[in-house]
Amino acid sequence: MLKRLQSLENPAEAYGYLRKMAIIDVGSNSFRLVVISYIPGYYFQVTDEVREAVRLVQGMGATGQMRAAPMDHAVETMQLYAAFCKASEIGDIAAVATSAVREARNRDVLLRRIQRQAGIDVRVLSGEEEAYYGYLAAVNSTTLQNGFVIDLGGGSLEITRVEDRHSRQSISLTLGAVRTTEDWLPDAPATPQAVNRLRQHIREQLAPLDWFKAWPGTRLIAQGGSLRNAAHIVQKMLDYPLDELHGYTLRAADLQNAIRLMEPLTVEQRRNIGGMKSDRADIALAGAIVVDECMRQAGYDRLTVCGQGLREGVFYERFLAQNDPPIFEDVRRASVMNVAHLYQFQESHVDHVVHLALSLFDQLHDDPLCGPAERELLWAACMLHDIGMSIDYNDHHRHSYYLILNSGLPGYTHRELALIALATRYHRKGMPEVGELAGLLDKDDSRRLLKITALLRLAEQLDRSRDGSVRDVRLHIEKDWAQLEAVSEADATVAIWSAQRHVDIFRAAFGKTLEIIQAYE
Amino acid sequence: MLKRLQSLENPAEAYGYLRKMAIIDVGSNSFRLVVISYIPGYYFQVTDEVREAVRLVQGMGATGQMRAAPMDHAVETMQLYAAFCKASEIGDIAAVATSAVREARNRDVLLRRIQRQAGIDVRVLSGEEEAYYGYLAAVNSTTLQNGFVIDLGGGSLEITRVEDRHSRQSISLTLGAVRTTEDWLPDAPATPQAVNRLRQHIREQLAPLDWFKAWPGTRLIAQGGSLRNAAHIVQKMLDYPLDELHGYTLRAADLQNAIRLMEPLTVEQRRNIGGMKSDRADIALAGAIVVDECMRQAGYDRLTVCGQGLREGVFYERFLAQNDPPIFEDVRRASVMNVAHLYQFQESHVDHVVHLALSLFDQLHDDPLCGPAERELLWAACMLHDIGMSIDYNDHHRHSYYLILNSGLPGYTHRELALIALATRYHRKGMPEVGELAGLLDKDDSRRLLKITALLRLAEQLDRSRDGSVRDVRLHIEKDWAQLEAVSEADATVAIWSAQRHVDIFRAAFGKTLEIIQAYE
Repeated sequence: MLKRLQSLENPAEAYGYLRKMAIIDVGSNSFRLVVISYIPGYYFQVTDEVREAVRLVQGMGATGQMRAAPMDHAVETMQLYAAFCKASEIGDIAAVATSAVREARNRDVLLRRIQRQAGIDVRVLSGEEEAYYGYLAAVNSTTLQNGFVIDLGGGSLEITRVEDRHSRQSISLTLGAVRTTEDWLPDAPATPQAVNRLRQHIREQLAPLDWFKAWPGTRLIAQGGSLRNAAHIVQKMLDYPLDELHGYTLRAADLQNAIRLMEPLTVEQRRNIGGMKSDRADIALAGAIVVDECMRQAGYDRLTVCGQGLREGVFYERFLAQNDPPIFEDVRRASVMNVAHLYQFQESHVDHVVHLALSLFDQLHDDPLCGPAERELLWAACMLHDIGMSIDYNDHHRHSYYLILNSGLPGYTHRELALIALATRYHRKGMPEVGELAGLLDKDDSRRLLKITALLRLAEQLDRSRDGSVRDVRLHIEKDWAQLEAVSEADATVAIWSAQRHVDIFRAAFGKTLEIIQAYE
Repeated sequence: MLKRLQSLENPAEAYGYLRKMAIIDVGSNSFRLVVISYIPGYYFQVTDEVREAVRLVQGMGATGQMRAAPMDHAVETMQLYAAFCKASEIGDIAAVATSAVREARNRDVLLRRIQRQAGIDVRVLSGEEEAYYGYLAAVNSTTLQNGFVIDLGGGSLEITRVEDRHSRQSISLTLGAVRTTEDWLPDAPATPQAVNRLRQHIREQLAPLDWFKAWPGTRLIAQGGSLRNAAHIVQKMLDYPLDELHGYTLRAADLQNAIRLMEPLTVEQRRNIGGMKSDRADIALAGAIVVDECMRQAGYDRLTVCGQGLREGVFYERFLAQNDPPIFEDVRRASVMNVAHLYQFQESHVDHVVHLALSLFDQLHDDPLCGPAERELLWAACMLHDIGMSIDYNDHHRHSYYLILNSGLPGYTHRELALIALATRYHRKGMPEVGELAGLLDKDDSRRLLKITALLRLAEQLDRSRDGSVRDVRLHIEKDWAQLEAVSEADATVAIWSAQRHVDIFRAAFGKTLEIIQAYE
């Protein structure tokens, strides 16, 4: 608590801008309330969440008539959410309904009951709007430039074609996981015939979409609870080293293995599958098959899991209202800045470490492992190296590692996330060891990591007393050795003494002995 | 950053009380600077640390003459620390010197050089004062009531007899790890003869201390870098599940195994032992032997590792100046409160969860696994259940677990630490699984954990909207079922709905179906 105050010029001022909003997703499978605290355009964080499996779409089938039991459940849940918002003093509530409500013939009955009994106005999204908010979430939390976003809900499936980060075309199909389960796979284990009939049905729905075809250099991003559930099962099957779904690359072959695993099982047996979410066990198979057919239809052999969706899309529309469309200019930068704002300890020191480390980086010559991609990783590692201080000074390098891995850093791949986390993990001492994250890394990544870590550590040590006394660095690279001039008008004793204790990692990284001397402007 | 501001009535005010002090331990083996931020009597936290291995005692031997090289190194290091404090704007510096300086014939030469060249006044502690500060650290970070504190430094060994938490008698012996290495085990591998001579020497020093004998119901607490190093090696040998030294129970038999492991090795070979601190490899064997002989002499077959020492003792004298002697009334309570203050999210909610959970606990009848010890664990788990919110709302139960395990909670055993951390880990959902911490727990602890977790979770859910709307709970226990009256004058919908979703854990813990109803005062 107190540490954080220190880092603010005027805490009360920042506090004054802090806003809170509640977003309620009146979904076909579950109702979700999420509370987000934010300063517009600057920082946001989820601060509360409630979920209730309402299964509004249950029993609706082709008749389009919402049944009494789920409707009562829906009203109760909304009353509860209203009470929750009131108790939490949240006045700003955005409630949006999707497929189940949209398609129900008796939707007005429900909407008026919610209005009267819970005092909440629910906005019913069209299929296009639903797709749009999924797209907003995807394009603001991944580096998607061109390709598709698919959002698999309980009632519907939305597909959006994205070109140059803009939504170009979209459609909503009634292929949600609850819907397809009820209509095509009501029994478990599912018979091969039933599975085939479901696959045939999905193909018939997708076949007319001639615009839903992979083209070179494009990616498929996928959202929704059933998709996350399937990806989690695959991660458990593969003993994946990271407990993070967002950004995970799900291969079609692995998804198909998960499908084969589920097919012969009862719902109760499915619940024993590692990674299975208990209240999704019944709809998990149909959901996975829908995703599989999408990949086959569009011609992708892998997809990227997006952990965000509709609710975040609604939020971004508010948070980024100054942009048109409301998307971040640079998702990766926004990600790092958001985490940095969350845990910032001493901004001036962090900025200075960034300056010194990038300056060293830019003075290296012709190192094939030090290109623009590595420079960006170094920047991110510098920005986040001290966030663990918000936990404790002792072992703060380990805490930074923990916080970075848990933040997920939307927009970065898991490999990049691992490299950034590992560089901060070793920013104080020791030679980097990739340990349990080895499985995420590429061939030369250990060497890349060593170089990034060496520069981060030198920069950190050159600002060891956190006062910016070493203003700049000049690096002279010779064949076997290098000389670092620490440019300072003040007393640079602490900086040079500290940096000198770490010349060994520079030598290990770059194969050169390093001398450090004080220099004046 | 922002979350924390929310929890303070008036952040600027609390900030105003925040103080910083630097403590410099001018030790015989290493010089350590630690910066502690604190509000007197309320909260403290280490916020910076620098260590330099100066080896001041090196070559001093029996002549008592500090040598030129280590003396120069000492002066440079103090200059550096002075520059560091200046850059960090810390005016309050307490520098204390121990054995090496105390016993040096030419100590005034060093002290004056430090005074003139670094501008720091060093206070030279007597053996009794050195022992006293070690005792203060031990008695403020463990539950030691009666027994002994031993503090093994580079130059000297301090032994303090403690009765009713008060220091009764102490002595300082020149049996430090550097000293005994230089005098008795200069070569590695050490010959069996040399080891025997060292053991004989230690025994001769300890034999006259007729007051250094275990008596019933007492404990041995041990401090110092060499001791921590030895304990760390033993933890690695045993694949100990927790990465925490403070509070670790080191058995004499295990320490002796570590000694046998080191004896035949060169210093370089010792560096490859898991857990060995590289710059302690040369003095590690002699240090471990001194500790072993202390246990034999006093008649203890185990000791408790204390991760704090001289520096913390000096700090406590300041921090707890209002107490005489400066010791916490209740170490365990102080520990929990310190962590809670560090990460507090919403104090009113936490206090209310404590109230509800303990009230439920007190209305249980005759449960043999629900006694005073479990009540205290439940209290601690309630106090700390939400600290993970300071990291992120998502998975904050896992973050609380991480923070609690990392805090170490001085005063609690590792078993209790594990139980508290695990209860918070499961305070939101799931049935508790002890996982990797199983090795720390006793036979019935899984059942204890389940009961504690169930009560914490019900209390948490009864204040789900964090507004205290359920003021009290009345619990009626019948043979097969129980009824919980949620006493509320306001709308208790959210509370009762939330709690009802978790009656299964109550049934699992207490074997009774639970009904929850609203009741008025």
